[in-house]
Amino acid sequence: MSSVSAMLRSTRVMGLGLCAVVLLFAQAHAQADPLPSWHEGPAKRAILDFVKVTTDQTSPDYVPPEARIATFDNDGTLWTEQPLYAQLLFALDRVKVLAPQHPEWKTEEPFASLLKGDVKATLAGGTRAISEILMATHAGMTTEEFARIVQDWLATAKHPKTGRPYTEMVYQPMLELLDYLRANGFKTFIVSGSGVEFMRPWTETVYGIPPEQVIGSSIKTQFERRDGKSALVRRPEVNFIDDKEGKPISINQQIGRRPLAAFGNSDGDRQMLEYTKDGDGVRLAMLVLHDDAAREIAYGPANGLPESHVGAFSQSLYDEAKQNSWVVVSMKKDWKRVFPFEHQSSSSHVR
Amino acid sequence: MSSVSAMLRSTRVMGLGLCAVVLLFAQAHAQADPLPSWHEGPAKRAILDFVKVTTDQTSPDYVPPEARIATFDNDGTLWTEQPLYAQLLFALDRVKVLAPQHPEWKTEEPFASLLKGDVKATLAGGTRAISEILMATHAGMTTEEFARIVQDWLATAKHPKTGRPYTEMVYQPMLELLDYLRANGFKTFIVSGSGVEFMRPWTETVYGIPPEQVIGSSIKTQFERRDGKSALVRRPEVNFIDDKEGKPISINQQIGRRPLAAFGNSDGDRQMLEYTKDGDGVRLAMLVLHDDAAREIAYGPANGLPESHVGAFSQSLYDEAKQNSWVVVSMKKDWKRVFPFEHQSSSSHVR
Repeated sequence: MSSVSAMLRSTRVMGLGLCAVVLLFAQAHAQADPLPSWHEGPAKRAILDFVKVTTDQTSPDYVPPEARIATFDNDGTLWTEQPLYAQLLFALDRVKVLAPQHPEWKTEEPFASLLKGDVKATLAGGTRAISEILMATHAGMTTEEFARIVQDWLATAKHPKTGRPYTEMVYQPMLELLDYLRANGFKTFIVSGSGVEFMRPWTETVYGIPPEQVIGSSIKTQFERRDGKSALVRRPEVNFIDDKEGKPISINQQIGRRPLAAFGNSDGDRQMLEYTKDGDGVRLAMLVLHDDAAREIAYGPANGLPESHVGAFSQSLYDEAKQNSWVVVSMKKDWKRVFPFEHQSSSSHVR
Repeated sequence: MSSVSAMLRSTRVMGLGLCAVVLLFAQAHAQADPLPSWHEGPAKRAILDFVKVTTDQTSPDYVPPEARIATFDNDGTLWTEQPLYAQLLFALDRVKVLAPQHPEWKTEEPFASLLKGDVKATLAGGTRAISEILMATHAGMTTEEFARIVQDWLATAKHPKTGRPYTEMVYQPMLELLDYLRANGFKTFIVSGSGVEFMRPWTETVYGIPPEQVIGSSIKTQFERRDGKSALVRRPEVNFIDDKEGKPISINQQIGRRPLAAFGNSDGDRQMLEYTKDGDGVRLAMLVLHDDAAREIAYGPANGLPESHVGAFSQSLYDEAKQNSWVVVSMKKDWKRVFPFEHQSSSSHVR
């Protein structure tokens, strides 16, 4: 066989092989359920319908890819926030690590209670106590040093209830939702009240969200030279609180467009969802309701349960959601499984 | 012919056609000069070498795509900043439009001089006068209203020297550089002292840079209801000045990584370039030197010329660049053409 005909033949074989792969992939793609951990029901239907009408070029509600912005709260929306926000647990652990350098903490509150192991007394000091602990543990180092401290903590810290790493305490249905939106041309952002530099070291690995798509609260930084190199040093001074009104403000500041879809779970997300829904055309606003006492924990007034110290979902937020066609996701009824480590068959709820 | 063999045959034809296209494209890609408006020389060589070593997987300096962050100053780096920053000309035009609603401006400075047509006297008031003009023209409306005002202005405003729209006063070699970096997996950002909401309405069309990759100075916004819908209203209060130390601070705040490459043209970019070069591994820092009196304008002490009221490129910045292997781009010697509307043959400079 001449080398030309051999080349042509191998090209034909390549062509056939390629086409077979393309067809198989297209078929698999058309058949697979993109949200396998979601029960059939109104929440799943709302997501699928929303993506269909905004991405189908023949739809009157079509939105070009560059405007497909989706924003997600983190604590309580993408991962668990109970019994305490992970960043607060991180701060409490850091106090213990730093205590030898701070002999004065043995007698000064809120540190003294914490070092005696009394978390309840520590937190009794409220916002001021928490702020003191955050500033004492989150400032003084460069931004790069802080990122390493967070990574080291996450590598060994365990969730107090399940004993699992925090990065496993994420919601499987929300991971599927993130993937599904991205597969349909959406750009996914985190917009969280937690510290932006506490989240960035791990969001890319855990959620597929790169640092530049993570928005959060922050402390001020200062440009300095350290060890002969320029660096940003974290200062014990609040820069921005990314909660409530802060969320639409930071979205405008850093993204510069109204989201097409927004996802939250508490009163801190109310303004972000209002801002999203008040944009022109079809928009999706969704709230995760923590009503699954068996698989996670049920909390908050919207469930008829007492106020929780984290992630309050008030009755007034619930009413606003219902009045404005926001989607309220019941973890108990809408999710086949909650965490990636559960067997999918662990739920008996079928609607 | 059976339908099966017809299908197989058409598949073979498709395969052959596809391969031919792939080969042709690969060849064209390998042969085309990605920077046709750059003369051969040290600046072009530095760019090509940098991209090669950071994107070649076999290179010891290889950087994965997600860390390929490139930041660009705007005024004087991507488009002209002479005779005045575009945003300042926009503000001066807005004073004239808004004057009927402000009869007091007829006697109050800096407005009175401006309305008499005396720009020099207007700007003699310095930073304070400019700040008053900016606040009077940039606040009070929603962010969406402001974006429309900017778009309307750009649609009709002409550059005072060339009579061309501002969006044509961009540097052709830098447009090529943006495309070239993106084609090699870099994410391109603007990091400018100009107002972020003045730039976002047009950066996607002009530079291919979406709003969420534009960082700039900002005024505060307030979350309100306007006409029954939630909106962000611009307030006459500075939020952040994105210049000098502000640039690495905003890069960390919004991107969360040190850039791999940074491009500027004045002392306002010094800290951004230091921050970039002080990262680990190979980095590229580049300054555009405005030394082309024939095709643009030559200005600044680094050229042995007097201080300009915009875009100062000091001798000390020039010295720092030379000491630290930053690349200084001579517009006169390194660029075949400056603006897209020029014929490529307009330059007689060959090195």
